[in-house]
Amino acid sequence: MTEILNIKSPADFIGKQGNGVISFGSGQPDLPPPKETFDGIDLHRDLRYGLIQGELKLREALTREYPGSTADNFVITNGASEALDLIFRILGKGKKVLLTKPYYYSYPPIVESAGMVPVYTDLIDGRIDVEDFNEKIKGCCAVLINSPSNPTGRVEAIETLKAIEKLTQKLGVYVVSDEVYKDLIYERENYHIQGDHVITVNSFSKTYCMCGVRVGYLWSADKKIVQDVCELKTHTSMNTNLVGQDMALSAMKAPKEYILHQQKIWRERRDFIYEGLLKLGFDLWKPEGAFYVLPKCKDAKQFLSILYQDYKVITYLGEWFGAPDRLRFSYALDIKQIEEGLGRIREAMKQVSVL
Amino acid sequence: MTEILNIKSPADFIGKQGNGVISFGSGQPDLPPPKETFDGIDLHRDLRYGLIQGELKLREALTREYPGSTADNFVITNGASEALDLIFRILGKGKKVLLTKPYYYSYPPIVESAGMVPVYTDLIDGRIDVEDFNEKIKGCCAVLINSPSNPTGRVEAIETLKAIEKLTQKLGVYVVSDEVYKDLIYERENYHIQGDHVITVNSFSKTYCMCGVRVGYLWSADKKIVQDVCELKTHTSMNTNLVGQDMALSAMKAPKEYILHQQKIWRERRDFIYEGLLKLGFDLWKPEGAFYVLPKCKDAKQFLSILYQDYKVITYLGEWFGAPDRLRFSYALDIKQIEEGLGRIREAMKQVSVL
Repeated sequence: MTEILNIKSPADFIGKQGNGVISFGSGQPDLPPPKETFDGIDLHRDLRYGLIQGELKLREALTREYPGSTADNFVITNGASEALDLIFRILGKGKKVLLTKPYYYSYPPIVESAGMVPVYTDLIDGRIDVEDFNEKIKGCCAVLINSPSNPTGRVEAIETLKAIEKLTQKLGVYVVSDEVYKDLIYERENYHIQGDHVITVNSFSKTYCMCGVRVGYLWSADKKIVQDVCELKTHTSMNTNLVGQDMALSAMKAPKEYILHQQKIWRERRDFIYEGLLKLGFDLWKPEGAFYVLPKCKDAKQFLSILYQDYKVITYLGEWFGAPDRLRFSYALDIKQIEEGLGRIREAMKQVSVL
Repeated sequence: MTEILNIKSPADFIGKQGNGVISFGSGQPDLPPPKETFDGIDLHRDLRYGLIQGELKLREALTREYPGSTADNFVITNGASEALDLIFRILGKGKKVLLTKPYYYSYPPIVESAGMVPVYTDLIDGRIDVEDFNEKIKGCCAVLINSPSNPTGRVEAIETLKAIEKLTQKLGVYVVSDEVYKDLIYERENYHIQGDHVITVNSFSKTYCMCGVRVGYLWSADKKIVQDVCELKTHTSMNTNLVGQDMALSAMKAPKEYILHQQKIWRERRDFIYEGLLKLGFDLWKPEGAFYVLPKCKDAKQFLSILYQDYKVITYLGEWFGAPDRLRFSYALDIKQIEEGLGRIREAMKQVSVL
């Protein structure tokens, strides 16, 4: 009998790759950044402190993606993670924040470490239930939404996003919209929720395959939010690394075809893993964006342990994302590896009943 | 009559340089990093997520500076700022932290935003008063010390550091020792406080003149501290930027002569500004490390305003550092600029009585 692993979070799998391991774990592109990323980067640039808010040229370039905005509406951060962390730290201790469930596993700790209290609305089939949302939002200071979603792979309907936009504006509730997968929607263009009460969080990590460079940003039409975030960041990390900001600016010079080509690759992989898991009998949602599937799985902990120890396959527990009895698979792998991984999963299923 | 500026923090001076302005403001070296910093940096490296704790090679290199330690004792952070922020956030909300006064201006906000309560011990002539320290430490969970100090330029006596080391160990109080200026001591080698209760914070910014790259680190012999910091950083920023870590590792290859040469430059500047301000009649401490002087100054706000508006000289209010009726000067400028700045100060002194 295979031992059940005492694995508590994705961090426990860090550094466990290589040596024939197939990892459906870490949520990051396996592809290289676009070649433009490296064009004209001069390490001998001025390496003294930069603006806390971020390099002006980078913020100016971002205005092209946010019509009607100016460089003043952005703060460049150490990835989307830092943007989220700073936002909740300035919103106010003791207040309630609405999270959707399943959620990205860092959301509850970020909200809690900011001294705020998470409240949950359960997704239905991976999508926001507007009725429950309207109920649970009462008394909250902010809501954090994530479309396309990690871990569900779902994209909210534009109708839902507009309803949220309107309701929160009426109630005076902040919407923190984590859109790091906005360029990885298979079905339609991203819908950017707007208004003075909206704070959009984004990143260069997923679109441009540069997770380790750690450059993200937030957008807000509310100058006070921008100012408060900059004030806190002055003390907690100062400017975001300058070379990384230069690389992010260069990456933005990649042609539109680059993003379309990426979407094509992800769509092929999505189709392959979705069909493959369906064939194996799993009950799962078809991803509409990002690169995750979250199939139902009985005895998920045991299956994860068997997959890792006997078949060298890494998966993440749905439990870490607020989805017990599910497993999360990232499909940031080439088709051949996904195929090999699915084969191993089929074998492992002989050892335990997971369907 | 010159208008009194409504300047509230150093951030208000960001971007105000150039155009003939002489800035005694920002605390960062004006010199370039050592040439080794750029050797062998490959931007086409793997840019996927790195270890939250930091690149192994960099942590291994750091063990040479911390005898008896291993790579496990370090966490690489977005500058010393993030290290401090993470440390206080894991130490526990509601608890008291002892700070010395004057202090680096980010210390109180970092402690307070972590939900902790700052308690102050007043420095005497810029140095810790062991008697008052022993009194005020009671009931504190941690103390934050900074030798060499920004803004005083003082270096604590080894005797004092050893007394603190011993007392805090006995009381079970954490010592957070911010040693970012450890390589800029004019008089002696740095004394590294040690023990399971010590968390040392350091940075590549000042030693290697790369503030904007944002690479710092913490050292702790307590594995639980390291683990808790990594856990929090997993959610709040993930790995520190990888290219920056590569540059930090390369910078460490600079020969010992590089650091000695830097010290020589800083000592010359120190002597020049110290003598110059003395000649102008200011009452100030002679810096023993770092690159700041903190002369007494009556009507400091008015003098700062006159200096900036009429003479294009930037200085920082002592008040921001818990030292009212003083001005802080960073002397990270070449001698010619310091000389020009002193000349302008002499002229400005004709407009207002500051001595």
